[in-house]
Amino acid sequence: MAGESTRDRLVRAAYELFDEKGYDATTVEGIAERAGTGRTTFFRHFGSKEAVIFPDHEALLAQIRSRLAVASRDARGVAVTEAAKLVLLHYLSEGDLARARYRLTSSVPALRDREIAGIVQYQRLFRSFLQEWLGDEPGVALRAELMAACVVTAHNHVLRAWLRGQTKRPVEDFDEAMTEVVAQFAPRREQEGGSAIVVLRSSRNVDDILPAIRQALLQT
Amino acid sequence: MAGESTRDRLVRAAYELFDEKGYDATTVEGIAERAGTGRTTFFRHFGSKEAVIFPDHEALLAQIRSRLAVASRDARGVAVTEAAKLVLLHYLSEGDLARARYRLTSSVPALRDREIAGIVQYQRLFRSFLQEWLGDEPGVALRAELMAACVVTAHNHVLRAWLRGQTKRPVEDFDEAMTEVVAQFAPRREQEGGSAIVVLRSSRNVDDILPAIRQALLQT
Repeated sequence: MAGESTRDRLVRAAYELFDEKGYDATTVEGIAERAGTGRTTFFRHFGSKEAVIFPDHEALLAQIRSRLAVASRDARGVAVTEAAKLVLLHYLSEGDLARARYRLTSSVPALRDREIAGIVQYQRLFRSFLQEWLGDEPGVALRAELMAACVVTAHNHVLRAWLRGQTKRPVEDFDEAMTEVVAQFAPRREQEGGSAIVVLRSSRNVDDILPAIRQALLQT
Repeated sequence: MAGESTRDRLVRAAYELFDEKGYDATTVEGIAERAGTGRTTFFRHFGSKEAVIFPDHEALLAQIRSRLAVASRDARGVAVTEAAKLVLLHYLSEGDLARARYRLTSSVPALRDREIAGIVQYQRLFRSFLQEWLGDEPGVALRAELMAACVVTAHNHVLRAWLRGQTKRPVEDFDEAMTEVVAQFAPRREQEGGSAIVVLRSSRNVDDILPAIRQALLQT
């Protein structure tokens, strides 16, 4: 699409200029000129100079929403993992662009703040789905919020390690991290029926407590 | 202290003017004038018009740091809970000022972004202590980051409910939320020695599996 290619050109021009002249000294006019378009065209694509740093933010939110919206009841943990992975894979595929963004957000406080505000939007989106899934039980709002925070934190942890060159296997790291997060928040009673054994630690002799365990099991 | 009282006067003047004229229409000069001081005095206390909204942010970070720094090895969960509670109690004691801030950060995007950036600072502070405590094992950096995210998320969850008038017992809510967070991240083998019973669900008859449990217990 012609529109997309202008957009891509604007992003590339912006990053080139940020690199050459610094973020503050770069103007929207300068970006538009480098991309071979005008100021009006720039503002048709991006609301501000800051917005060009995060060109795919809205599209990624929409992708997450789409993935979570089709999650089947039995595979919501998988859906959450895959939705977050969409974002990770997007940044991995950007390569140098993602690294250039990381340098910018690390050095320009206003961009760092904007990035963080974007992270909060991801977190809210996950939270709203999780809350709907978890239902009306007491404590559910908190639980959904904690899990959403963990999903986004795990994603950013792995992405940051990759951006810093600390890992060469970000997808595997991410899968491991998400397995831990999903397990931590899994419902404690996934299967009904059968025998349930309560976790218990005791310094008493095993044979002394077995009868009590047997009794407890028969009562559940 | 004379300095503190000028500072408090500046904060009160700022909130009054934000309420009367709106945030954007209020100037640093106007705040200083209302407080009976000059522009220079304002800037001796606050770096910007935004900073006057969060006058105690640095002091609260310092309080958290002090509390975590004296945590005894056996009571780190308590220390984390108490450190986060210092922040909650501070906002509860502010009363109307905290509610006025909430109205402002909900309606002025730049202030909301700044607040979020402040939340990230809390999160980093908790993370750095947790990471130091948890040591060098693999996965520890992620675990510390997840727990820090949960501590701050639980705190904000309860504070927000209180600011919205959804709870009249924020301290109890907070204690409950933190008990859950601390338990979730507690080491899985807190006590050594004695018998350990693994959680297990099975559709087999209790008496069929008891011998196997006995055997398993004796081997731990």
